[in-house]
Amino acid sequence: MTLSMYQASVPVFVRALGNLTHVLQKGEQHAKSKNVSDEVLLQVRLIPDMLPLIKQIQIACDMATRGTARLAGVEPKSFEDNETTLPQAYDRIARAIEYVKGFTAEQIDGSETRPIHLKMRSGEMQFEGQAYLLGFLIPNLFFHCTTAYNILREAGTDIGKQDFIGEA
Amino acid sequence: MTLSMYQASVPVFVRALGNLTHVLQKGEQHAKSKNVSDEVLLQVRLIPDMLPLIKQIQIACDMATRGTARLAGVEPKSFEDNETTLPQAYDRIARAIEYVKGFTAEQIDGSETRPIHLKMRSGEMQFEGQAYLLGFLIPNLFFHCTTAYNILREAGTDIGKQDFIGEA
Repeated sequence: MTLSMYQASVPVFVRALGNLTHVLQKGEQHAKSKNVSDEVLLQVRLIPDMLPLIKQIQIACDMATRGTARLAGVEPKSFEDNETTLPQAYDRIARAIEYVKGFTAEQIDGSETRPIHLKMRSGEMQFEGQAYLLGFLIPNLFFHCTTAYNILREAGTDIGKQDFIGEA
Repeated sequence: MTLSMYQASVPVFVRALGNLTHVLQKGEQHAKSKNVSDEVLLQVRLIPDMLPLIKQIQIACDMATRGTARLAGVEPKSFEDNETTLPQAYDRIARAIEYVKGFTAEQIDGSETRPIHLKMRSGEMQFEGQAYLLGFLIPNLFFHCTTAYNILREAGTDIGKQDFIGEA
């Protein structure tokens, strides 16, 4: 078995988003024990000029869904950013996982040199598939999952790094 | 060109640690402008029962150095955790980068099924190389680099996600 673009993307994304659901569930337990509403919890930020929890979740999902589609060379499905409650946030993550799981190894493998073209607010970016996965998607996905974790942790949730890493 | 265990580890680790140095340099600028000592900055935490900045840096370095060695099947070099100043912290990261760069593709490639045995305080863990890299090393490395970023960001450092992701 040789490492492939599929193995380094889809299962990694699915696992990270599953663990994100898990830390969010623990955050929900803590918030409910303190009578904190879903709306308030999802708007918590580490510092006022950073994005709130819900946005960290949405971007993590987008990295996984858009990234997988682009590696496969298909137009990414767009998900609306309109979640204000925890059931909606869980559903957003679940739909992202389902979408990512819909791609096959045949679609992703061999995408090492596939040209990837991103239009960002900050400008346009050009990648080949492997650099896009290893230098953009994975760091971004874990950045937003970790920041969501840190927001929940700082808000008092009883979570540890094992909740973030998940089961091997 | 097919994705390999080397490409998914050594260059990813080197880049993450280089970006960690970069955000730490920006944190230093901010701290110096506020007359915050190195010792105080390196002991900042997001919340009292999380690890301080210096520990986030040390663990990120250890993930890269120990992880690379274990993938290569050699005994990891141990680095002493004794940094109290920023020059020492930069040097720790630089030594980790140098150590990781000392491994060749020939040593790492083909490690997908290499048995990896970890003794942790929480117990023993068994992996094969690919699961160790994708499900343990990479999530842990980015967890600690992101938490270091979040500590510096919350402390007032003028950094954005691009500083964390770095140049493609």
